[in-house]
Amino acid sequence: MRLHPRTQAAKESIFPKMSALAQRLGAVNLGQGFPSTPPPPFLLEAVRRALGRYDQYAPPAGLPALREALAEEFGEEPEAVVVTSGATEALYVLLQSLVGPGEEVVVLEPFFDVYLPDAFLAGAEARLVRLPLGEGGFRLDLGALERAITQRTRLLLLNTPMNPTGLVLGEAELQRIADLARRHDLFLVSDEVYDELYYGERPRRLREFAPERTFTVGSAGKRLEATGYRVGWIVGPKAFMPTIAGMRQWTSFSAPSPLQAGVAEALRVARREGFYEALRESYRKRRDLLAGGLRALGLRVYIPEGTYFLMAELPGWDAFRLVERARVALIPASAFYREDPPEGLFRFAFCKKEEELELALKGLAPVVNSLA
Amino acid sequence: MRLHPRTQAAKESIFPKMSALAQRLGAVNLGQGFPSTPPPPFLLEAVRRALGRYDQYAPPAGLPALREALAEEFGEEPEAVVVTSGATEALYVLLQSLVGPGEEVVVLEPFFDVYLPDAFLAGAEARLVRLPLGEGGFRLDLGALERAITQRTRLLLLNTPMNPTGLVLGEAELQRIADLARRHDLFLVSDEVYDELYYGERPRRLREFAPERTFTVGSAGKRLEATGYRVGWIVGPKAFMPTIAGMRQWTSFSAPSPLQAGVAEALRVARREGFYEALRESYRKRRDLLAGGLRALGLRVYIPEGTYFLMAELPGWDAFRLVERARVALIPASAFYREDPPEGLFRFAFCKKEEELELALKGLAPVVNSLA
Repeated sequence: MRLHPRTQAAKESIFPKMSALAQRLGAVNLGQGFPSTPPPPFLLEAVRRALGRYDQYAPPAGLPALREALAEEFGEEPEAVVVTSGATEALYVLLQSLVGPGEEVVVLEPFFDVYLPDAFLAGAEARLVRLPLGEGGFRLDLGALERAITQRTRLLLLNTPMNPTGLVLGEAELQRIADLARRHDLFLVSDEVYDELYYGERPRRLREFAPERTFTVGSAGKRLEATGYRVGWIVGPKAFMPTIAGMRQWTSFSAPSPLQAGVAEALRVARREGFYEALRESYRKRRDLLAGGLRALGLRVYIPEGTYFLMAELPGWDAFRLVERARVALIPASAFYREDPPEGLFRFAFCKKEEELELALKGLAPVVNSLA
Repeated sequence: MRLHPRTQAAKESIFPKMSALAQRLGAVNLGQGFPSTPPPPFLLEAVRRALGRYDQYAPPAGLPALREALAEEFGEEPEAVVVTSGATEALYVLLQSLVGPGEEVVVLEPFFDVYLPDAFLAGAEARLVRLPLGEGGFRLDLGALERAITQRTRLLLLNTPMNPTGLVLGEAELQRIADLARRHDLFLVSDEVYDELYYGERPRRLREFAPERTFTVGSAGKRLEATGYRVGWIVGPKAFMPTIAGMRQWTSFSAPSPLQAGVAEALRVARREGFYEALRESYRKRRDLLAGGLRALGLRVYIPEGTYFLMAELPGWDAFRLVERARVALIPASAFYREDPPEGLFRFAFCKKEEELELALKGLAPVVNSLA
């Protein structure tokens, strides 16, 4: 008895592995991207109220109240929205629905780790377009993106604000990507789970430039600091969404009802009460604290324009030695590259308490000094 | 731009469709199998306590506390348990992990509607073994089961207590199935989401007879009357489970954390306080009320040995006319057959309040009389 060969996609992801290691060693966990504080009280309260009222199956496409709240956010009709069990399921279902064997998906590298297994499990080939890393950080090479498109390409998979680079695609780039997609008749999947986490001007959305072909992926977990609630969504061209909902019913049938109901209410409160502005301010402060501390230690740091991650260089170290010696869990760049990752580059999650960031800096200091 | 042809699996399931129709028409919903009462207070309380404490990602294999609670229930080690976003995801992930193109899965017919798209989406062929329906109800024809096995068969997919027939496989049948699987070197997937809903003696589990090859699927939603909580599980041979966990991380990453934490606690309370015994008693009463009422109307009724469904005949009617005329939503047998369903056979869910069952009987009376 052997499992099917497609289970070669099943390798343990480094994210939960580093979290488990951090916990075992009592290390500061700047690895996996989840906040170390609870979600806002208005979300907890809304979920508490939903318990005992929203306990049975939701429709596969989502609770009507949540589809409506999201439709309002996106300026779309509820029929354009399908709720999923987290953005992970959204991405999985989209890849299954859009591509198959003999077809290609263009993915920017470094990439969030689910994109490659998602393409593989759909039977498609991932063509990687590597972002050049210079003094000023990562940037998107639009020429390289265009050159990666072949006769077999069906889909461009983008992520903005981008994990792990912190890059936010600007209006000119979004327009060029939309033009490319239109010229080559491609679908666009835009992973925007960090849509409320940016440090400059509010970014535009890719869907504004190509609404007829763009599927936008989002996540209540990221917006409302509740990564364990498994409430994500897809906003896409209305005509395709009944089929997308039909596909997502086979993976987990529906997202958790009381958490959907709580999120529906909390999305409105968050918008009304300036929750996202406060969140950005709080993250900006933590970003600057961590970046400043790392620079003071002499590290090269790439300042993110969005997300709660930054990348910095610790040449000569690997993540497993670091977590043991410095008691700081980080994610090595290798987690985001198929091959030849940049040497000594790490992703730091700063969605953690200030005292944790300070503790991490303290743990890193002797390690960094030993490099000199 | 076209979606991938595998999206032909995406047809809207009749279950949410009938629920929506029932709601629109103000009909009694004996269609979709979810309780019309809230979950037990000890579950609601446990989830309330978990909010604010278990809000971030759980490990893909499940919260340790839940894996331990389930391991205790099943007399296994926690490493034999993987938690999923409902039994739907458990089944999907198992089919993806066990079979592929050119391979066959044997499925009993009538079947729960996810089995066929699960096999199709894994690229495998479903071979159906129809249960003969006689005066005494449905029965498993073990000879037909054996004849359905070919060189390409990799997996027998069973369901006991069985939806929609209410059949519970006995010890001799389980033993014969285990022998068959061993002789032909097949995997076994045993969907046991109704494991606590039986009306005779406590049934044995298929895994007792073939632990080395059996994956048991279960559901907190069914056991604890919270179908919207999306907490299911797979208990299987320990050596395979890290790979199964690795596959399930790509579909929804992890099941909802506060609901996992609540379920972990509630499973222990349920066992300790005789919750399942009370549940069975309450369902037995409702089963008898519905079956007695339908028989009094002159219908042929097949009394279930387990689950909260029964099947009965209403010759000459279809489900859409019934919901309009009798204001009762039922699921027609056609939802459980690939072709040639028995004429005029319907599934009635009796996981509803007694007054709803009475209301349904009242709505059906004139319709049935019009048949005579």
